[in-house]
Amino acid sequence: MLAVLLLSHAVGQRKIVNLPDLPGYVTMKCDFHMHTVFSDGSVWPTIRIEEALRYGLDAIAITDHLEYSPKKDFIPVDHNAAWKVGEEYARERNILLVHATEITRKMPPGHFNALFITDASPIAKDSAWDAIEEAVRQGAFIQWNHPGWKAQEPDGIPKLYNFHKKLLEKGWLNGIEFFNDVEYYPSVFNLCSEYSLAMMGNSDSHDLISESYPKPEYINRPMTLVFSKERSASSLKEALFAGRTLVWFRDVLAGKEELARPFFNQCISVGKPYFEDKENIYFEVINKSDIPFYLINGAKGAPGEIALAANSATRIVLGKKARSPLLYDVKNILIGENEVLKAEIKY
Amino acid sequence: MLAVLLLSHAVGQRKIVNLPDLPGYVTMKCDFHMHTVFSDGSVWPTIRIEEALRYGLDAIAITDHLEYSPKKDFIPVDHNAAWKVGEEYARERNILLVHATEITRKMPPGHFNALFITDASPIAKDSAWDAIEEAVRQGAFIQWNHPGWKAQEPDGIPKLYNFHKKLLEKGWLNGIEFFNDVEYYPSVFNLCSEYSLAMMGNSDSHDLISESYPKPEYINRPMTLVFSKERSASSLKEALFAGRTLVWFRDVLAGKEELARPFFNQCISVGKPYFEDKENIYFEVINKSDIPFYLINGAKGAPGEIALAANSATRIVLGKKARSPLLYDVKNILIGENEVLKAEIKY
Amino acid sequence: MLAVLLLSHAVGQRKIVNLPDLPGYVTMKCDFHMHTVFSDGSVWPTIRIEEALRYGLDAIAITDHLEYSPKKDFIPVDHNAAWKVGEEYARERNILLVHATEITRKMPPGHFNALFITDASPIAKDSAWDAIEEAVRQGAFIQWNHPGWKAQEPDGIPKLYNFHKKLLEKGWLNGIEFFNDVEYYPSVFNLCSEYSLAMMGNSDSHDLISESYPKPEYINRPMTLVFSKERSASSLKEALFAGRTLVWFRDVLAGKEELARPFFNQCISVGKPYFEDKENIYFEVINKSDIPFYLINGAKGAPGEIALAANSATRIVLGKKARSPLLYDVKNILIGENEVLKAEIKY
Amino acid sequence: MLAVLLLSHAVGQRKIVNLPDLPGYVTMKCDFHMHTVFSDGSVWPTIRIEEALRYGLDAIAITDHLEYSPKKDFIPVDHNAAWKVGEEYARERNILLVHATEITRKMPPGHFNALFITDASPIAKDSAWDAIEEAVRQGAFIQWNHPGWKAQEPDGIPKLYNFHKKLLEKGWLNGIEFFNDVEYYPSVFNLCSEYSLAMMGNSDSHDLISESYPKPEYINRPMTLVFSKERSASSLKEALFAGRTLVWFRDVLAGKEELARPFFNQCISVGKPYFEDKENIYFEVINKSDIPFYLINGAKGAPGEIALAANSATRIVLGKKARSPLLYDVKNILIGENEVLKAEIKY
Repeated sequence: MLAVLLLSHAVGQRKIVNLPDLPGYVTMKCDFHMHTVFSDGSVWPTIRIEEALRYGLDAIAITDHLEYSPKKDFIPVDHNAAWKVGEEYARERNILLVHATEITRKMPPGHFNALFITDASPIAKDSAWDAIEEAVRQGAFIQWNHPGWKAQEPDGIPKLYNFHKKLLEKGWLNGIEFFNDVEYYPSVFNLCSEYSLAMMGNSDSHDLISESYPKPEYINRPMTLVFSKERSASSLKEALFAGRTLVWFRDVLAGKEELARPFFNQCISVGKPYFEDKENIYFEVINKSDIPFYLINGAKGAPGEIALAANSATRIVLGKKARSPLLYDVKNILIGENEVLKAEIKY
Repeated sequence: MLAVLLLSHAVGQRKIVNLPDLPGYVTMKCDFHMHTVFSDGSVWPTIRIEEALRYGLDAIAITDHLEYSPKKDFIPVDHNAAWKVGEEYARERNILLVHATEITRKMPPGHFNALFITDASPIAKDSAWDAIEEAVRQGAFIQWNHPGWKAQEPDGIPKLYNFHKKLLEKGWLNGIEFFNDVEYYPSVFNLCSEYSLAMMGNSDSHDLISESYPKPEYINRPMTLVFSKERSASSLKEALFAGRTLVWFRDVLAGKEELARPFFNQCISVGKPYFEDKENIYFEVINKSDIPFYLINGAKGAPGEIALAANSATRIVLGKKARSPLLYDVKNILIGENEVLKAEIKY
Repeated sequence: MLAVLLLSHAVGQRKIVNLPDLPGYVTMKCDFHMHTVFSDGSVWPTIRIEEALRYGLDAIAITDHLEYSPKKDFIPVDHNAAWKVGEEYARERNILLVHATEITRKMPPGHFNALFITDASPIAKDSAWDAIEEAVRQGAFIQWNHPGWKAQEPDGIPKLYNFHKKLLEKGWLNGIEFFNDVEYYPSVFNLCSEYSLAMMGNSDSHDLISESYPKPEYINRPMTLVFSKERSASSLKEALFAGRTLVWFRDVLAGKEELARPFFNQCISVGKPYFEDKENIYFEVINKSDIPFYLINGAKGAPGEIALAANSATRIVLGKKARSPLLYDVKNILIGENEVLKAEIKY
Repeated sequence: MLAVLLLSHAVGQRKIVNLPDLPGYVTMKCDFHMHTVFSDGSVWPTIRIEEALRYGLDAIAITDHLEYSPKKDFIPVDHNAAWKVGEEYARERNILLVHATEITRKMPPGHFNALFITDASPIAKDSAWDAIEEAVRQGAFIQWNHPGWKAQEPDGIPKLYNFHKKLLEKGWLNGIEFFNDVEYYPSVFNLCSEYSLAMMGNSDSHDLISESYPKPEYINRPMTLVFSKERSASSLKEALFAGRTLVWFRDVLAGKEELARPFFNQCISVGKPYFEDKENIYFEVINKSDIPFYLINGAKGAPGEIALAANSATRIVLGKKARSPLLYDVKNILIGENEVLKAEIKY
C-alpha cells in the first residue's frame, strides 16, 4: 500500500538521547575510555565514531594502551594512530574526538587515561610517574581507570596507594571511574568528595558496543554526562576539571547531589490534577527522559512505590489524607556510597 | 551487580509520543473508530483504554455498531454499554473517551461514526437518514468511515451518492476517513477540500492493537492528530468541526498544507554549520519527532535525497556551490491526491 | 529490490516452540488457567485461542469463576459460555480447548480449577465440597490454584487445611500450581511427591498475555508441559492424572527428576571433539531447545560454569587433565524444594 | 523472584539456524566475501569470526583486496594477514575459515574472489589473467563478484566480456554472485546454467554485519548454502566445484530446481487432517525452517495464497471440492531468471 520505507535505524545519523540540559549548561553524553586495533581492541577508529553516533554521544576519547600492543606483528606501534585516523572523520560528523591515551601499569598504581593531550608518544615513559608528568605538562586531565578492577584488586575495593596520594597532592589526579564496563565501585563516591575528583563512567570497550550493550531502550552504554558551558572541546575540558559530571549506566544514575537533584528535576514534570473523587486526586508525573526513575518509601497515605518509566506519563492516585510534602527516595539515583536522592513530587 | 529493574515497558503508563504542538494548539493523538465485545470486537472496553495509554493517545472513541450484534446470544444489546463501562475508567487515566456509535449500512450510504453523542439508543433507527438526523440533533460530529472500503466499493474509490450529497447540503457530514486500518483512499483529499471535511485516520480495530501494529518504533497505529485549543472534550470537538487535523499511519503523514507545513517545521530544526572545508559546509538537521521524513529531489549541488530519521540528527554535507534555497519534496507528507509538501531547509 | 514481504509474525499461525518429545510421549504445551469477559477477564474467548496459537500452545483451559461475575450487569451469568463460544473456534485451529471452571473460595480451601468437566452449571454449589464432588462426578481433574497466593496466605507458604486433607483422602485433588502468573511456591515440590499430585504452571491471565509476557525469545508464558501418549484430549487427561508434567516459566524448568532428566537429555547433544591442542580438547554442546540451561559447579579442571544458550552450540574448552565424569548442577532445572538436577556432559 | 539470568543472546556461541540438511549432505551456511582492516574493512579478523558465530555460519572467507590498501600508512601490506590472524581463532571456535583473497580490477574483468588458496602474495600480479592463473595453480575456486555492480555496470546487468569467455573456456571460472550485499542480479541464473557455475550469495561486508542486517528474525545476512558431504574444508570445496549451492537473503531463496525442490520439501511437512465439517477439511502445513514461504496461485477451490511463516504451523482450510493436486507457485523460491518453484502440498 503506502510507500513505507521502514527506516528502522539511522545509519550515520546521530540518535537523540532524551536527557535534559541544566540551566546554563549543555549535557554532553561522553565515553572517555575505549580501544581500537592500535592496541588491544578489535575495530578501526571509525567504528568507534559510528558507535558514538548510534548511541547519541557527543564526545569520545580513544585511549589505546601505550604499553600493550598485542597486534604489533601486523601494525607498527604509533601511539597517535587512532587520533590521526579518527580526527577528521569525527569532526565531519559532529563528534568531538578527545586526543587521549592509556598509561597501563600493574596496581599500584594501575591504569590511567590522559585526556586532552597533544602527543601520546612522549608520554610512553618507563616510569608511570614520568608518564603522568608529561601528560600533565601537555595539559591533560588524568583519570584513574577501574580503581577496583578485580584483576588488580581481588576484593574489588579501590585503595589509595602512595603513588595516588602523591598525585593528589600535586593535583595530578582529576577524575576516577565509578562505572567501567559492567563493574562499579561504590566507594569512589568518597574519593570524589574528599579529593574533588570528577566521577567518570566509561565503557572501556574493546569489541563491539552493540554486542556488549544490546538495544532495548532501557539499556544504554556507560556514559559520563558532562555539564558543559557549550558543546566544544574547551568547554568540555573546563567542565571535567570542574567536576561537573554525572554517570549513567543501565538504569542507574550516580553523582553528587548538587548536580543529581537539578538534573532529576529537569527530567520530571508534574501535571495539574485532572480528576478527583471523594477520596483521591489524580495527576500525572511526566518523565521526559530516557532514564526510568524508581521512587520508593512514600509517606503514609501516598503510593509506597512509583515507577516513572522513561518517556512516559505516570498516573498518581493520591489519597486526600496523604501526608504532605510528597517525599520519596529515588532508588536508582545514587548520591553517596550508601545514599540515594530524596526528592519531592510537587503537584 | 546493579539493581536493574528492567522496566522495559510501562504498564498502565501513558507513553509520550514525540510530536510537536502548533503555536496556540495542543496536538491531540486520537483514534475515533474501534470496537468491543458490545458489537463485533473481541475485547472489553478497558482494553481499548489500556491500548490508548500504551500507544500514547489522548482521546479515543469506541464506536460499536448499532445494527450488528453478533454476540447478542451472550450479551444483551445495550448501545451505550461501552460508554458506561469505559467512561470512569478512562477519566481516571486521563484518556478522553468520546461517547460515540457506528451507523452501519450497505453502500450507499455505507458506515458512519457519530462522535460526541449523548445517547446511542435513539440513534438506532430503521432509516440511516433518521439515524444521522438524531445524532446531529445530539450535537454529533459525523464521520464517513472507509469510503472506499473494497468490501463495499470493489474499485476502492469513494463515490458521492445522493445520500452523501444531501448530507453535505445539510452540513451533516463533518469528517471522512483517509486511513482506515491498513487501507487509504487518496481521493479523500479532494472531498476534504471541496466540502471542508476533517480528514480522519483511525484503526477500526476489532482485535488487539498490538497484534495489528507491532512495536518497532517506525510503525504506529493509524492516528488522527487534532490541533486543539486545549486538552479537553469541548476543545477537541471544536477542533474537529473546524477541520484542524492531520492523519498519521506508519511513516506517512497527510492533510492540508496549512497544517502540514507548520507541523513539519516544528518537527525539524537546523543546527548551525559545525565544520567546513574547501568544498563543503557541514550542518545537522535535527528531527525531534517520532516520524521520519524523506526529502527527495534536492536542487543541483545539494544532496539528492535526505532521510531524516525519527529522533535523530542527520548530517548534511552541502557543496558550497549548491543552489539556494535548499528546496525538497517531503516524500511522505501528502498534501493532495498527487501532491507532497515542498519544504525548505534553512541553515 | 526484492519482494520482501516482511512477514514478521504469523497471524493465525501456530508458533513452533522448540521443545523435544520424550520417547513414547508427545510434549504438549498447555496453560490450564485463564479468564474471559464471562467472569473477571477482559477478553472474548477467541482471543485466548489466538494467544495460544501465537505462543505455540497445544491445549488451554478457560476457567472462569463460578462465584465471581463482576460484569453481570452487562453479561448474564452462563457458566458454560466461554466453552460454547470457544469450542468450535479452537477445534478449527487445532487447539485443544479443555472444558473447565474455577471454584473460588476464601482460604481455606482457596481456589480450584476443575478440568475436563461436562457442564459447569451444576458445579456452582453453595458448598465448596459439594462443588468439587460434582466436578469429580463429571470426571474432572481437580487442580489447587496458587496455594501460596499472598492475598490468601500472607506468608506465601501453602498450607494443608482439613479440607485439603479430606480431598487428598478421597483422591479428589490431582494437581497443584507451582507457577501462577509471576509467583511460584517452592514447597509444592513436597506436596507433589508426598501426595502424587501433578505439578502445574499456568498464567491465570485476566488481561493480555502479550502485555504480561512480552516477546523476547527467552521469556515464555507460564506453561505446563504434559507428556501425553498422543495429541488428544483423552491422552492429555490420562497424562495429567498420571502426573506426567514439567512446568516452565521464563528460564526455569521444574518437576520430578524422572521427567526432568530425560527431557534435559533430549534438549542437549554433545558433538565430537573438533579440535585439540596440547592442553585442551574442544567440543560443542548443542542446545536445540528454547530453554537456556545454566551449568554450574563444574569439577576441577573443567569450566566452572557453562551457559547453554537456547538454540545455540556452546563451545567447551576442556583441560585434558579435567576430572571425569563431567558433572554439573543445572541451576535452572529444579527437581526439589532445594534441589537442582545434576547432569553429566558425555563427550 | 526467580533467578532469571536473561541470557538474551549468546556471546561466543554459535546460533543454530533452522535449515534442513538434504539426504546425504550437510547444509553449510557460508559467506565467502568480506573485508577487514587488512584492506578496506573496519574490523579485525576476529570480529568476522564472532559475527559468523552470532549468525550461525559454518564457514567464511575473508577476501581482502590484493590491489587496494587504503590503510597502508598504518598497516603494512601483508596479503595473508587476515588468514594468519584468524586461522587458529576460527579453528578453536569450530568455524571453517577459508583462505582467500580478492583480485580487484575495473570492469572488464571486474572483481574475483579466489577461495581455497595457499598463499595470497604470489597472486598479486600486474595482470588479472596472471593473478587468476596463479590462484588456479594453487587449486582455487574462482568466484566472479557482483557481476552487475552498478559502480561498474551502470545498467546493473552482468555482461560476458572476452576475459570471462576465456576464463570459462579454461574452466577457470567456478562461481558467480547472485546476491552481493543488498544487490542481486537475476540474469546470473542463465550464466549458472549455461556454464555450470555455482550460484553464490555473500555479504561483501566492510563494516559491521549487525548494522547492515539488523536482527528481526526474518532478516538474515546474505548466505551461500552449500550442500556438502561432510562439515569439512575438503568437502566444502568439492561441493562448491560441483555447484551444489542455494543462496538465501532476507526471505528469498534462489538456485537450481534440483536443489531447491528437495530443500523446500525438507523444510515443510503436512499434518494429517485434524478436523472436517460439511464443506472443508482442516490440516496444518508445518514450516520447520527459518525461511518463510509464500505460496500463490492456488488451484480453484483451494486457498489462493498461503503464507507459511517461519517456524510455524499454518492452518489450511480446504474445500472438499478443491481440485487436486494442490499445486502452488512458491513466490520466494527463484529457480530461474523469471521462474519460481512450483510445489505440491500433499496432505
